[in-house]
Amino acid sequence: MVDPRFFGRRGPTTLTDLAAAAGATLADAAVGARMVSTVGALGEADADALSFLDNKKYAPALETTKAGAVVVAPRYADRAPAGCAVLISDDPYRAFARAAAFLHPPIAPSSGVQTGAHVDPTAMVGAHVSIAAGAVVGEGASLGDGVVIGPNAVVGRKVTIGPGTEIGANASLEFCDVGASCLIHPGARIGTRGFGFAMGAQGHETVPQLGRVLVGDHVEIGANATVDRGAGPDTVIGDGCRIDNLVQIAHNVRLGRGCVVVAQSGVAGSSRVDDFAALGAQSGVAGHLRIGAGAKLAAQCGVMRDVAPGEAVGGSPATGFRDWMRETAWLRRAAKRKGRGDEE
Amino acid sequence: MVDPRFFGRRGPTTLTDLAAAAGATLADAAVGARMVSTVGALGEADADALSFLDNKKYAPALETTKAGAVVVAPRYADRAPAGCAVLISDDPYRAFARAAAFLHPPIAPSSGVQTGAHVDPTAMVGAHVSIAAGAVVGEGASLGDGVVIGPNAVVGRKVTIGPGTEIGANASLEFCDVGASCLIHPGARIGTRGFGFAMGAQGHETVPQLGRVLVGDHVEIGANATVDRGAGPDTVIGDGCRIDNLVQIAHNVRLGRGCVVVAQSGVAGSSRVDDFAALGAQSGVAGHLRIGAGAKLAAQCGVMRDVAPGEAVGGSPATGFRDWMRETAWLRRAAKRKGRGDEE
Amino acid sequence: MVDPRFFGRRGPTTLTDLAAAAGATLADAAVGARMVSTVGALGEADADALSFLDNKKYAPALETTKAGAVVVAPRYADRAPAGCAVLISDDPYRAFARAAAFLHPPIAPSSGVQTGAHVDPTAMVGAHVSIAAGAVVGEGASLGDGVVIGPNAVVGRKVTIGPGTEIGANASLEFCDVGASCLIHPGARIGTRGFGFAMGAQGHETVPQLGRVLVGDHVEIGANATVDRGAGPDTVIGDGCRIDNLVQIAHNVRLGRGCVVVAQSGVAGSSRVDDFAALGAQSGVAGHLRIGAGAKLAAQCGVMRDVAPGEAVGGSPATGFRDWMRETAWLRRAAKRKGRGDEE
Repeated sequence: MVDPRFFGRRGPTTLTDLAAAAGATLADAAVGARMVSTVGALGEADADALSFLDNKKYAPALETTKAGAVVVAPRYADRAPAGCAVLISDDPYRAFARAAAFLHPPIAPSSGVQTGAHVDPTAMVGAHVSIAAGAVVGEGASLGDGVVIGPNAVVGRKVTIGPGTEIGANASLEFCDVGASCLIHPGARIGTRGFGFAMGAQGHETVPQLGRVLVGDHVEIGANATVDRGAGPDTVIGDGCRIDNLVQIAHNVRLGRGCVVVAQSGVAGSSRVDDFAALGAQSGVAGHLRIGAGAKLAAQCGVMRDVAPGEAVGGSPATGFRDWMRETAWLRRAAKRKGRGDEE
Repeated sequence: MVDPRFFGRRGPTTLTDLAAAAGATLADAAVGARMVSTVGALGEADADALSFLDNKKYAPALETTKAGAVVVAPRYADRAPAGCAVLISDDPYRAFARAAAFLHPPIAPSSGVQTGAHVDPTAMVGAHVSIAAGAVVGEGASLGDGVVIGPNAVVGRKVTIGPGTEIGANASLEFCDVGASCLIHPGARIGTRGFGFAMGAQGHETVPQLGRVLVGDHVEIGANATVDRGAGPDTVIGDGCRIDNLVQIAHNVRLGRGCVVVAQSGVAGSSRVDDFAALGAQSGVAGHLRIGAGAKLAAQCGVMRDVAPGEAVGGSPATGFRDWMRETAWLRRAAKRKGRGDEE
Repeated sequence: MVDPRFFGRRGPTTLTDLAAAAGATLADAAVGARMVSTVGALGEADADALSFLDNKKYAPALETTKAGAVVVAPRYADRAPAGCAVLISDDPYRAFARAAAFLHPPIAPSSGVQTGAHVDPTAMVGAHVSIAAGAVVGEGASLGDGVVIGPNAVVGRKVTIGPGTEIGANASLEFCDVGASCLIHPGARIGTRGFGFAMGAQGHETVPQLGRVLVGDHVEIGANATVDRGAGPDTVIGDGCRIDNLVQIAHNVRLGRGCVVVAQSGVAGSSRVDDFAALGAQSGVAGHLRIGAGAKLAAQCGVMRDVAPGEAVGGSPATGFRDWMRETAWLRRAAKRKGRGDEE
């Protein structure tokens, strides 16, 4: 299943070693010497593969899986078929993630500066850095140890990139500092000029955007996503944020730690999103707002007011999630009933 | 009208030849020796140009056009002005498309590897391939005959591209196989890491994305669109799909044949869209759903349930298209009436 | 505050000179010899900085600012703290923009063709042009004086770019003419093939897109935004338009002068947007419509009909802005009241 052209393969691994890598426990230590070498979904995995159950909807598939082993929560430990080894974890999806990463390490590019890369002689390049063909690293830029710069990516002048961070193909960075162990996907734009100008009927006047983008550690920024630099204050992306494809983060926005920003959503200028808030796909947050820690924004919602910590909202303009669901349902019933009444 | 800097020109062509190229029939064979050399809209075309009528809204423009010839459906054959030659087709827009392509062939780039392209020596390159300056073709990649790789585009390691496919400027492909005769627009991202991680308050754990993207034949993927590779299963784009600019296709999504996905819409993870379904602009499909064959999603709708084959839906959350229209109209009337009542 | 790695600094400037640059008036000419050298927000600026008040919400911050000088509207001239010099302007945000640009001129790239750029020998290159590493300038392209082409940007064959225009990193232009003093942001796509095809159950037929994109002067096009070329007519972006990140402009669209198109919004094919209209974030305009001069489209609205000059609309499908607000409020109240009634 896992295409060897694209992904590495550590080779057969004992369940004992795999459980250790996954942070899981073997239900029956006696099977610890059995081996698997790959991973797969419950319905597709064979005896050579580890699978997992996370969403209870798929519990029936657990009972008939042909996987050699599965990782499940304790309450499902008895539901795997005979012959399927069971690894137990309180967080089976996370354990599966670790096992998959262990069995299929990425194929790393060779380190060094490839022919056709353009690295300014004043750039500081750490150890074991890989810079692909066509990449451009500007004057005085700084790349930490183990940084990977993809083909045709651009690292602007004086930009700093922390150790272990990977910059995808054709991405571009300017006016920013990026932390360690980040993944900036292909085509992402970081540090671009914010949308700042004084409007006027005789023409709009550009307002210089004199801030930066500061990206923390372990951040992921999706393909073709855009993060504008601040107007004066900085735009800040906290540690561990996960930003999906085609997201727009405007100038001066501050994301706390661990925020999840799903595809095609956007945050307007100067808004602040606190730790572990989650923005659904195609949602929007207007400018100068505060989204509290752990808040949840439904897909396509349009937020025009502050959202309290932990609050769930939906709709456009957004309101409490349950209120929105209730309004939607009520409107559907009322339009049907009254619509009928009108015609009688 | 058609700027010769940018488009080719076959030169004057007889209506007989043009009708053959278009798959249309000349209403009066006696005018078959007349010539045109270009195309244009009804209101702009002159005696040297072929025009067409497809949308009945423009029928009045047909009656006054100065075009040398028009292609129309049979029922409009009598409505062209005297002196304007008539080509008849049951699908006049398609016939016009063929005629336009015949009269204005694209200006093809010269084949060969241009100076400044970076092609790995292990890549397999077919006949009549054109690779522009700044393009990067990775280790073991395979390019079929007649493939065109635009400037600064990136073809990742082991990626395969079928014959006749064109990759636009600054696009990037990785972990994917692309079929024949496709058009991948500038800045498109194919095969990027899906948005997969195990969430947790102590930090999110990346889940390896071990699938690919499989793109069929005759597929178009728009500028700056993004197609993530699968998590384990593959992401699949069926033959003949048309994907517009800035669209997001998430991991494990399967599009059938001939789907039309309009600009800025998105399909979330593991959803399946069957043959010839059409997704309106800025629409969204939540994860793990099935959109039936020929279904029609209105612009900006947000689909949170399965859609039956042939069903039309609108609204967010989406419901039947007519129900949505009725609800919207009813709400408008009710708010106006009741709003007035409240104030009395 | 303003990071000297990324932004220039003219050095200390007298308030007399700064007022002149800003087009503002010193309230007390006696302080004209005082100096500042940077800018900052009211709450952050110190004695060396100029700040400003534009939004009355921040008036309290004016009274306690430690800024050395502020630029304000006449009615606020008396509210700055003692010791803070006052510049007066009827348009303080614009005056601030000019002062900031004066104090912090951009760090210009050195002119000339950098090593690793690929400029076709038939291209016409003006004086003081800067072409970065990895940039590709095609056959017969024309770059006016002072043009800046960023790293890995692509200027297609026969494209013309007016004097003083800057093209960001990894942007690509084809089939277009761009005016003077424009800013095309990183990753923008201009002149891409419009989404034109004749649909059919046996497969869709590509319709050649034989128009161009014509971009006026002083236009800004955002990061990863897309502007398709016309199908036959041209796509036109008028002088002074400001287009934000991730915006989609479809084929044949015509924007008048000074339109403001906020992030992630889209305009479908053949629609016309007149002078100084403003499209909110994530809004959409369907095809073949006309949006009048000065119209205002709320964020996330979906316009399916013409909008009158000066009209404000909201909602999806969009209606008058006040009607939309009223409907939303009425629905909220009604669902709450009736919902309660249903349960009694």
